[in-house]
Amino acid sequence: MPARGDHEARRRDVSEAVWRVLAARGFGGLTLRAVAAEMNASTGLLTHYFPSKKALVAYALDVADERTASWDRAVAPAPGMAALRTALMDVLPLTPEAAVMNRVWVSSWDGSLGDQDLGVRETERYERWRSRLRPHVQDALDRGELPAGGDVESLTVTVAAFTHGLVVQALFDPDRFPAERQVAVLDDLLRSLAGGSAD
Amino acid sequence: MPARGDHEARRRDVSEAVWRVLAARGFGGLTLRAVAAEMNASTGLLTHYFPSKKALVAYALDVADERTASWDRAVAPAPGMAALRTALMDVLPLTPEAAVMNRVWVSSWDGSLGDQDLGVRETERYERWRSRLRPHVQDALDRGELPAGGDVESLTVTVAAFTHGLVVQALFDPDRFPAERQVAVLDDLLRSLAGGSAD
Repeated sequence: MPARGDHEARRRDVSEAVWRVLAARGFGGLTLRAVAAEMNASTGLLTHYFPSKKALVAYALDVADERTASWDRAVAPAPGMAALRTALMDVLPLTPEAAVMNRVWVSSWDGSLGDQDLGVRETERYERWRSRLRPHVQDALDRGELPAGGDVESLTVTVAAFTHGLVVQALFDPDRFPAERQVAVLDDLLRSLAGGSAD
Repeated sequence: MPARGDHEARRRDVSEAVWRVLAARGFGGLTLRAVAAEMNASTGLLTHYFPSKKALVAYALDVADERTASWDRAVAPAPGMAALRTALMDVLPLTPEAAVMNRVWVSSWDGSLGDQDLGVRETERYERWRSRLRPHVQDALDRGELPAGGDVESLTVTVAAFTHGLVVQALFDPDRFPAERQVAVLDDLLRSLAGGSAD
């Protein structure tokens, strides 16, 4: 029986290989064969870990979750709108690493929409994201940085929607959406929401 | 040799079957076997039409394009902001049919991000969509419905981003985002962009 350390090391190898496959090919390219090739291992060895395609996809989502959670996020410079801006910039594909992360998540939606269990996970993941944004929106309302009477829920949904939609446009058209353009469009939106004009 | 009419009828059968597979399972579930089963045909027959998985995916994107183009769009009630609102509502999953259409497009992003040719097609499709929205944004600026000095390009990207991001949230969480909620959040955004408060 292998030592505990071996087991952990092997698990880390699998996790790294899964991530490299996702980063290069998305979930559509995630197969036992591709992961095995990344590890210089046999497909047979991997079927020990993943008895089904769904088990492999579920594990890949765990790997993506771990990667996202360990993301080295920027420290918010101040509460309210400044923190909201930072939280949204954290998601946008402003760096090659963030582009890979986003590409993996966008590519996961196909499988998550087609599978009830995975769909529930993604629904929960969305609500967790909105829950992280909501306090910043509430702070901005409390501080008068957003107009009085604004609906915290509607504003939270709006900035989340805008950010993911911009992610998709930028992934498909990186030339048209370099980092500074993404941030400029975000700042225009935040200015509009704050009640200023868009220019 | 079959008559021309037979050929067209068969092509229509294939197209219908491809659409039904996409609607039920997305691009991740699109296989020759699944399409053949939908047609009660042999996989061998279909390989005559689709020599590769990529050929099948490319054809499926054509089918989705045709379906989207033939979409019975609402007639804009007036130019400017009203037309922009209608154009965005046309995209949102406000009906079961629109939800299926969106599910197909969102599920196509995985494959399009992983293939250069398909990626170029999606990049062009995005630009065509923005090109349809842009005149409405310009009209709204010209009519003073959007603040003077607003950037037509930034506003167009913003409403497109918001709409697709709301599509994704609503597809994963239809209970939280019934049609009236989607429209309410859209109207809040349009009011903010117009320079009004969000309440």
